[in-house]
Amino acid sequence: MSMANPAWPLTPGLPALDAFPYALWGRLEGRFWRRRPTPDLSYGDPQGFLPLREALAEYLGAARGVVCHPHQIVITPGAQAAVSIAALALTDIGERVWVENPGYDAAYRCLVLAGAAAVGISVDAEGLDVDDGRNRAPDARLAMVSPSHQYPMGVTMSLARRLALLEWANEANAFILEDDYDSEFRYECAPAPALKALDGGNGRVIYIGTLSKLLAPGLRLGFLVAPDGLIDALRTVRNGADYRVPMPLQATAADFIGNGHLGTHIRRSKALYTERRAALLSAIKSEGGGLLTVPTASTGLHLVTELPEQCDDQPLAVAARERQIGVTPLSGYFVDASGTKRQGLLMGFGNTRSESMKGAIQTLCSLIE
Amino acid sequence: MSMANPAWPLTPGLPALDAFPYALWGRLEGRFWRRRPTPDLSYGDPQGFLPLREALAEYLGAARGVVCHPHQIVITPGAQAAVSIAALALTDIGERVWVENPGYDAAYRCLVLAGAAAVGISVDAEGLDVDDGRNRAPDARLAMVSPSHQYPMGVTMSLARRLALLEWANEANAFILEDDYDSEFRYECAPAPALKALDGGNGRVIYIGTLSKLLAPGLRLGFLVAPDGLIDALRTVRNGADYRVPMPLQATAADFIGNGHLGTHIRRSKALYTERRAALLSAIKSEGGGLLTVPTASTGLHLVTELPEQCDDQPLAVAARERQIGVTPLSGYFVDASGTKRQGLLMGFGNTRSESMKGAIQTLCSLIE
Repeated sequence: MSMANPAWPLTPGLPALDAFPYALWGRLEGRFWRRRPTPDLSYGDPQGFLPLREALAEYLGAARGVVCHPHQIVITPGAQAAVSIAALALTDIGERVWVENPGYDAAYRCLVLAGAAAVGISVDAEGLDVDDGRNRAPDARLAMVSPSHQYPMGVTMSLARRLALLEWANEANAFILEDDYDSEFRYECAPAPALKALDGGNGRVIYIGTLSKLLAPGLRLGFLVAPDGLIDALRTVRNGADYRVPMPLQATAADFIGNGHLGTHIRRSKALYTERRAALLSAIKSEGGGLLTVPTASTGLHLVTELPEQCDDQPLAVAARERQIGVTPLSGYFVDASGTKRQGLLMGFGNTRSESMKGAIQTLCSLIE
Repeated sequence: MSMANPAWPLTPGLPALDAFPYALWGRLEGRFWRRRPTPDLSYGDPQGFLPLREALAEYLGAARGVVCHPHQIVITPGAQAAVSIAALALTDIGERVWVENPGYDAAYRCLVLAGAAAVGISVDAEGLDVDDGRNRAPDARLAMVSPSHQYPMGVTMSLARRLALLEWANEANAFILEDDYDSEFRYECAPAPALKALDGGNGRVIYIGTLSKLLAPGLRLGFLVAPDGLIDALRTVRNGADYRVPMPLQATAADFIGNGHLGTHIRRSKALYTERRAALLSAIKSEGGGLLTVPTASTGLHLVTELPEQCDDQPLAVAARERQIGVTPLSGYFVDASGTKRQGLLMGFGNTRSESMKGAIQTLCSLIE
């Protein structure tokens, strides 16, 4: 399927690009270029710019319950790159890795490119099914999960499952990649703490964060937080595989986060997303004619709608894109070709203005009919 | 060995960071943030920002004899990333790749991380020894070469060798990765045209360029130019492995190159490097006491000096770094642990002021004695 245009309504995976703080960011970046003595434009710190790691450590402790030191953070060009780095550093060619099924397709591609054998593990209302993982690949080296907001289903992993996952990792001497991509946006209760916050002295969890959903994917800025014992290996891979991040970007992000602008931006964005999400839910109710149902939608920047029986999500999404609506088919996120694929549509509301929701839902429903 | 500090004299691999056009770059980047309608901060074109690819195509045709279309260019975060992308796209796990021995250590690490089996091929005064390659690994899938300025030895590949390399690639159905990293800086004659300029209809050469040596490594901007038939595979890997480049950087670089600033900067830099190189050669002559000899130094941003017999380059380089001199040992660039390793020192003059040369050479010679 062709890529959705980011300007189309309901394209998932995008934050509000119309709310990005362009002027402020430009001002901070201008400061970098004017700063004297000359800023360092050489290869830079092999783990990433220290002031940025300091700012992130402070933010993560306060916002996500992830208590860490700057020396445990590695700056990356995004969450996908962080997955690549972890896979290259921690798995041998052909070693098995649990991935959620359905799951984050881009991370799946990263793992395969890094030479890992990705095994799809089922997901239910409590998140990743750890028993299913133990059955399919008890000896896996890594498990890739999105506990705060499972992608794409949107469920939050239960505490029992979190503990079961950590228990398996300890037994199997495996590591957990926690993708915490848009956990800050939760609408009906407080954000769930990160799985990393439960990670005890064994240090099983590598936490992956990104500014792609908090600010904009076009910045290309992410990071991982790892147990002390893994940092050297991750840093070596980051530099060997050239996942370094431009210095002007790192310095500007350090100023932005360190001076509290990220917190402010998240608060403003959350108000905006609350409004956009309400507009989408209301449009589905008023214009959907009962064709679309929404099982859960309490976190993140998209929701998953179920379709009437006999309605195939793939041709529907193709037809929607021809009408410039950026929905994606749920069945496309299943990694296991043989298993049952649930049908549905992912609808992003992060980058869609409230006034565009009704028209988009009307068009979609006319296509379904 | 610990990393050299970029501020130390004689550190190789760095352009003149003191001559980077900070004010101009900052002005162009400021324009990006002020531009309306809102610039696109989503994931962007899967091959890289089109205006940047257009500007590069024009520059490469004029400056390097590489005639190509923007649709043959893929933007990457640097030359190393371009090597990773090519290796992931074109080789299967364990397939053999020719690398120059001695050669570019960072590219070697990239290839190994991507799962390729790197085979060191000897280098002489004409560049890579194609016959040695045919003997050691006739069935290799890729050959990684730096024909304009072999790294680290500095030799230029002869025309006969270039033709022999292309002939082998055609016979073996292999591809050539041409690393053209600092070919613009040649002091005693005009720059040699790229190997890619000899690549006929068969399309065997993937040309890799970087702004790390032309501008600054801290920008993290490179690119590759590939035959039409390989573009889809390279683009897929670029996005799958997350080697995308920040949009503000791509847009600013497009303005910088498209408006002729890169050409101007290269002309100015070349005058500066001519002066710095002369100062280093003169310091070696006046302060070296016959201990250091320079076989060739007509291209690039560093030169290789030979050492007296019985002088081991590794402990010498360690001692030099303790005195804050950033030279690196030649023997460290040999990939084959069993073969003979020539001894010598790489001395960068790109980021070293002329007035610092004498003192650095005096210190080095006192260490040798």
